[in-house]
Amino acid sequence: MIRNLVNRKYLLGNPNRILFRAISTNGKLVVPWEDGKTSKYHGIWLRDSCQCRECHHPTTLQRLINSSSIPLDISADSITENGDGVEITWKGDHKSFYTYEWLRDHSYDPVLVEPPSIKEVLWTGRDLHNSYVKDPYSRDIPQVEFDEVMRDDAGVGKWTRKIAEYGFAFVNNTPVDEKATEELCKRIAFVRPTHYGGFWKFTSDMAKADLAYSQEELGVHTDGTYFTDQPGLQLFHLLEHIGTGGETPLVDGFKAAERLKELDPQAYTTLSTVPVPAHAAGNKDVCIQPADSFPILMHDHKGLLVQVRWNSDDRSTMREWDTPEQVLEFYRAAKVWSDILSSQEFVFQFQLQPGRPMIFNNLRVLHGRTGFEGKRTMCGAYINRDDYVSRLRLTNFGRKEVLRFL
Amino acid sequence: MIRNLVNRKYLLGNPNRILFRAISTNGKLVVPWEDGKTSKYHGIWLRDSCQCRECHHPTTLQRLINSSSIPLDISADSITENGDGVEITWKGDHKSFYTYEWLRDHSYDPVLVEPPSIKEVLWTGRDLHNSYVKDPYSRDIPQVEFDEVMRDDAGVGKWTRKIAEYGFAFVNNTPVDEKATEELCKRIAFVRPTHYGGFWKFTSDMAKADLAYSQEELGVHTDGTYFTDQPGLQLFHLLEHIGTGGETPLVDGFKAAERLKELDPQAYTTLSTVPVPAHAAGNKDVCIQPADSFPILMHDHKGLLVQVRWNSDDRSTMREWDTPEQVLEFYRAAKVWSDILSSQEFVFQFQLQPGRPMIFNNLRVLHGRTGFEGKRTMCGAYINRDDYVSRLRLTNFGRKEVLRFL
Repeated sequence: MIRNLVNRKYLLGNPNRILFRAISTNGKLVVPWEDGKTSKYHGIWLRDSCQCRECHHPTTLQRLINSSSIPLDISADSITENGDGVEITWKGDHKSFYTYEWLRDHSYDPVLVEPPSIKEVLWTGRDLHNSYVKDPYSRDIPQVEFDEVMRDDAGVGKWTRKIAEYGFAFVNNTPVDEKATEELCKRIAFVRPTHYGGFWKFTSDMAKADLAYSQEELGVHTDGTYFTDQPGLQLFHLLEHIGTGGETPLVDGFKAAERLKELDPQAYTTLSTVPVPAHAAGNKDVCIQPADSFPILMHDHKGLLVQVRWNSDDRSTMREWDTPEQVLEFYRAAKVWSDILSSQEFVFQFQLQPGRPMIFNNLRVLHGRTGFEGKRTMCGAYINRDDYVSRLRLTNFGRKEVLRFL
Repeated sequence: MIRNLVNRKYLLGNPNRILFRAISTNGKLVVPWEDGKTSKYHGIWLRDSCQCRECHHPTTLQRLINSSSIPLDISADSITENGDGVEITWKGDHKSFYTYEWLRDHSYDPVLVEPPSIKEVLWTGRDLHNSYVKDPYSRDIPQVEFDEVMRDDAGVGKWTRKIAEYGFAFVNNTPVDEKATEELCKRIAFVRPTHYGGFWKFTSDMAKADLAYSQEELGVHTDGTYFTDQPGLQLFHLLEHIGTGGETPLVDGFKAAERLKELDPQAYTTLSTVPVPAHAAGNKDVCIQPADSFPILMHDHKGLLVQVRWNSDDRSTMREWDTPEQVLEFYRAAKVWSDILSSQEFVFQFQLQPGRPMIFNNLRVLHGRTGFEGKRTMCGAYINRDDYVSRLRLTNFGRKEVLRFL
């Protein structure tokens, strides 16, 4: 976790050092902090953010005030210090109180505090391979015990933290059965159903019309590129395999993307912008296609890489190009990317073991399967990203700290 | 439905009029059509799109060829006409066959054919109100019969088409019970579970910590702005109401956005770009927040409005602004938008009736509820957008036509 390093003892020794300017048309509240920084707040933003029980529901934590009823040029009759914060009496008599802590946490001009987060540990396959071959239970391999996860939320916190750090984690000493595995998944959140069903168990056959259910080799990919919302987590538990093959290669997609950006910035840009259509149409009664064609490397509005969508098998015929020249550039970029993903340096490959399920962040870590022979029974499930992240944050930071930044 | 109007009898009377150029480095296949248009196809794109059983799985409809194994400058040994299409023998001996129909459907330079789609009928509240007060079963009100939906897929096709056209539809003569209502939902797809549960039934109380479960007036909004993937459809069935109030206002968000763009293009741009954070944190064990902060008006990569995210109650404190000046502009734009949404011209308001559930596209149509008194029991469910659209397209266009454009 990257703790925020700002000294939280920022309340001023001398309240008189807090300078107020009148909130009038386009007026702002100005708060100078002990560390020399100064925050400015618009009147309408403050009124809209009023934390009183009339304006902000104390249980549901939802806004009650009709924001559009606030005049854009709202002004205050009085602004006074009051204990740990500032009380504002608005024209029309409504009173709002903001603690200095709240003002500091929510300062936007400038932003002063960042919500807590987990620092990702990016890895290459080589890093993990060397540890794993010496000892699959080495400290370098992200893992938790089944019992600790089932025992209490601290165990769930430890588990979800490993997933957030490494993008995957093993769960040691799990009972080799379907029911216990499903209960394990539910420690994070409910199972996400899809057109294939919910929690699944299968022995290799072609009853489900998707290559994932065959015995063929599957190159590394992310699941559900055909969904608007790709599954966030996937868990695999190998219950039995009488036969050979069927190893699991994993690749850290964020690490691979970092390498792509170094090696070939143009390819990185291409894969971050060209929209790729996808479909799941093997079952007679569905043809799932996402709401939009999304690029392979997806970034949030701040430009941070947050999601990898890569499954060449599920890619539909590409007929939407900005220019015909984009065609060759896309294939060129995809080849550079694919070469990184399949290089020995990047692939961490291992044999799943009964009793040691593996869960991974499907938005970051790509998975595959080598070809196999014999009877092989697996079970597993998807969990939504939103529910997983909620659980991750609450178990690791505590409810108070998570709510602090709403 | 906007049928594609291109004459599909485009196969040439005289095959000799088809001109081939050699596919060599950066070479392309060139196909002139009867209507005077000409399509060009890159060699690598053609090879990657090979439809043979070795390259494209006939059942799962997934790509089998490893795209990155294709040389960027792949060339052909021969190109010949063969019945209804073109056969290409690639250097290295693999043979591919493309029908003229497939080539025309997938032409990208230029795009010649558009997949079938349903034309949306945008409405104002006034349009529907005038019809509804005369007769709630007027032809102008989108509706289907419970029996026809339960009978066969043609009924489901009719229902989903109404939803796609109007953004909502009533289902007449539905049994007034929970079980039948759930079966009705499942005619489209499985119910989407959330942290609140799956198919729900409730009588007004505060057991679920969200304003939606209270008796307060709720302004029009979309549900689940705190999810990465907002629920696609929502169905409401009023089972019983002994009391007064509780009417349902609906607003066509796409029509309202069209008006906003006319009235105030700057406000439209603001609401299409400023990221808005959201949360659902009323229940002690969750704090759901989307993967990114999304704008209120969401567009696809072609710039088409595809989704409205609007729930002022669930909006978190906004601390991310490109510039401080954006603050006032956001509140100004949101006020113009909110005024349109609450204007009599735009709101279609009615009283739900037992036996006549209403389903709506939550990505387009905003809903609310006026305050009420008395005992009121509702049931309903969410359905994912992807599963709904799959069902919509398959029941309306048929599987062959849907698969044609993959």
